[in-house]
Amino acid sequence: LTHIDWDIEAASKNGFDHFMMKEIYDQPSAIHETLARRLDSNKMIQLDDIKLSKQEFEQIQKVYIVACGTAYHAGLVGKYAIEKLAHVPVTVDIASEFRYSDPFIDGNTLLIAVSQSGETADTLAAVREAKRKGARVLAITNVVGSSVARESHDVFYTWAGPEIAVASTKAYTAQLIAFYMLALHFARIKDTIAYNDYREKVEQIEKLTPAVEEILSRKETVKEIAQTLLEAKSAFYLGRGLDYMSAMEAALKLKEISYMHTEAFAAGELKHGTIALIEEGIPVLAIVTQDRLAEKMISNMKEVKARGAYVIAIAKEGIEHIHEVADKVIELPKAPDLFMPILSVVPSQLLAYYVSTLKNNDVDKPRNLAKSVTVE
Amino acid sequence: LTHIDWDIEAASKNGFDHFMMKEIYDQPSAIHETLARRLDSNKMIQLDDIKLSKQEFEQIQKVYIVACGTAYHAGLVGKYAIEKLAHVPVTVDIASEFRYSDPFIDGNTLLIAVSQSGETADTLAAVREAKRKGARVLAITNVVGSSVARESHDVFYTWAGPEIAVASTKAYTAQLIAFYMLALHFARIKDTIAYNDYREKVEQIEKLTPAVEEILSRKETVKEIAQTLLEAKSAFYLGRGLDYMSAMEAALKLKEISYMHTEAFAAGELKHGTIALIEEGIPVLAIVTQDRLAEKMISNMKEVKARGAYVIAIAKEGIEHIHEVADKVIELPKAPDLFMPILSVVPSQLLAYYVSTLKNNDVDKPRNLAKSVTVE
Repeated sequence: LTHIDWDIEAASKNGFDHFMMKEIYDQPSAIHETLARRLDSNKMIQLDDIKLSKQEFEQIQKVYIVACGTAYHAGLVGKYAIEKLAHVPVTVDIASEFRYSDPFIDGNTLLIAVSQSGETADTLAAVREAKRKGARVLAITNVVGSSVARESHDVFYTWAGPEIAVASTKAYTAQLIAFYMLALHFARIKDTIAYNDYREKVEQIEKLTPAVEEILSRKETVKEIAQTLLEAKSAFYLGRGLDYMSAMEAALKLKEISYMHTEAFAAGELKHGTIALIEEGIPVLAIVTQDRLAEKMISNMKEVKARGAYVIAIAKEGIEHIHEVADKVIELPKAPDLFMPILSVVPSQLLAYYVSTLKNNDVDKPRNLAKSVTVE
Repeated sequence: LTHIDWDIEAASKNGFDHFMMKEIYDQPSAIHETLARRLDSNKMIQLDDIKLSKQEFEQIQKVYIVACGTAYHAGLVGKYAIEKLAHVPVTVDIASEFRYSDPFIDGNTLLIAVSQSGETADTLAAVREAKRKGARVLAITNVVGSSVARESHDVFYTWAGPEIAVASTKAYTAQLIAFYMLALHFARIKDTIAYNDYREKVEQIEKLTPAVEEILSRKETVKEIAQTLLEAKSAFYLGRGLDYMSAMEAALKLKEISYMHTEAFAAGELKHGTIALIEEGIPVLAIVTQDRLAEKMISNMKEVKARGAYVIAIAKEGIEHIHEVADKVIELPKAPDLFMPILSVVPSQLLAYYVSTLKNNDVDKPRNLAKSVTVE
């Protein structure tokens, strides 16, 4: 028997026109809750539902992250964070592909399963398969007592609260926070991070809450840009490194509720084929938040601009030449590169929301889609 | 000083209207040459330019495959073949992403760099970076004496002959053959394959030559289907497992020369967002060649069909229910699942060619693209 302690009030629209916008606005709180509930008085991360010991963690030779859809995109950022901070190699797989790929799983494998609902059929099947092969399984889920949570050895609950809109927003940002915290936790266990650096990173995560609030306060800029996209048949998101992963999530958001064919590309791949699709007026959204990749991104933006693209940048404040190259710029407050995916996704969510509602689509329940995919 | 021994005659169109069609027709020979030149009188694979010893190979703990564009798609199939046959974990990365991701490279790493021209800037930079970190580097390239070949420790030359059309065709199939041969070679070194199984697989690869010829002989069917796609703004390719990798290459081919926005999806991901894009008449191309995944694919095809998609299957002969579910079926001769990517790509190449030429595009030199990307 499982008990889910969300009340009806918490699931209401709370004055917003749609659940999706309400949930976009829930994000500062989702980020804060997911983090703050696990910090002790010394601001050290305490993960009570994760029983993996130092000794057990040290035996882990590889990590798989398995998920579907938006949660898969969170996993891509998770891989980056865990590799950077805890120095363990991570493979991220789409659950429906993972199941049939005979992955190399053994007793030294940690599988991290990510699912907002905890009921995603392919992800649940991956959990069962990994357990059969002896892996340690850790769930990241938003629903207490869900199947994925019950069947995993360890659980990280995101405290995002109920997510009703089909297009996931706050569950995604909470999953990112979960991965950052896990990466820091693993790094502390493995002693791959200095104490001061650890403390500093926890503080940087705390500061993401007001930064998201600041982005939300400027949502009218995003609405104006949305109005310029209504006639486009296709749109592209570009990014490099972490921004490529954010671009994938941004593209999925736009396509699933606006029905505009949107695809994300690693910007370095443009010249290997995709740039053939660039023609006069096609919207290209460039995510530019990674300092050491910014110059290369500016160069890619120039390439598409030269071929007639309408270039919208979602960029960290202070990127050089961004205003000369982009037709429009949505600026993000500064945060360390590692944490920028939390900030860059917010304008993408708002943009998808506005394009969808301006087109009079059913934004909370897009055609053909269900909230949780419990069949294969 | 390097000497490239292709004569002018070999680079002519040889009676075809375009280089691309000539090169599609060169594939039976490219497959045959790449294989036959490395078989000894006992039909054992001899790789003279690969000096990696049994002892050295046994120390390899991980393999990276790094490439761009079409060569990256060949690498995805290569990962599958090497993991299956030689039981070594493989990571495939886009070269422009790999360079900036601080990958885990050390003296126990084998990096396989794939580049038709051997001059791809990002791939060459990855080779240099990997060497600096102590990795063993093996190149798969079509050009003797190219930069990637010269800077790598070991080289596998594909014997595809000069490829002139910007959209790669025969270089890709030759890269796949290279990966199958490397996987068999590694498996023999590591003793993870029985002698009889090895011999049988070599014979199965030999039989791909007549199988590709058979597909080419039925090209008019593909041309008829191409005529039904001319008005579409978007198209989707679907696949699972190896068919998903083939779908990515097929989608790139169609987009780069037909300028139709084409995207590939792992079919299991459809319900996690993309199915929102499916509307009346949108072309969905389903690649169905993997026996144990066929039933799931049939189910995905039914889902898109129910939402109005025009479904074209590229399927191995004998898949149950395929003719009931698809509007059109392009049948492929039977081969073992592992080798089906060689066959399934051929109709995709033909389809891209016909859509492009029927639209009067410059098929050999699509807009915005160059044959080899020697700048970053």
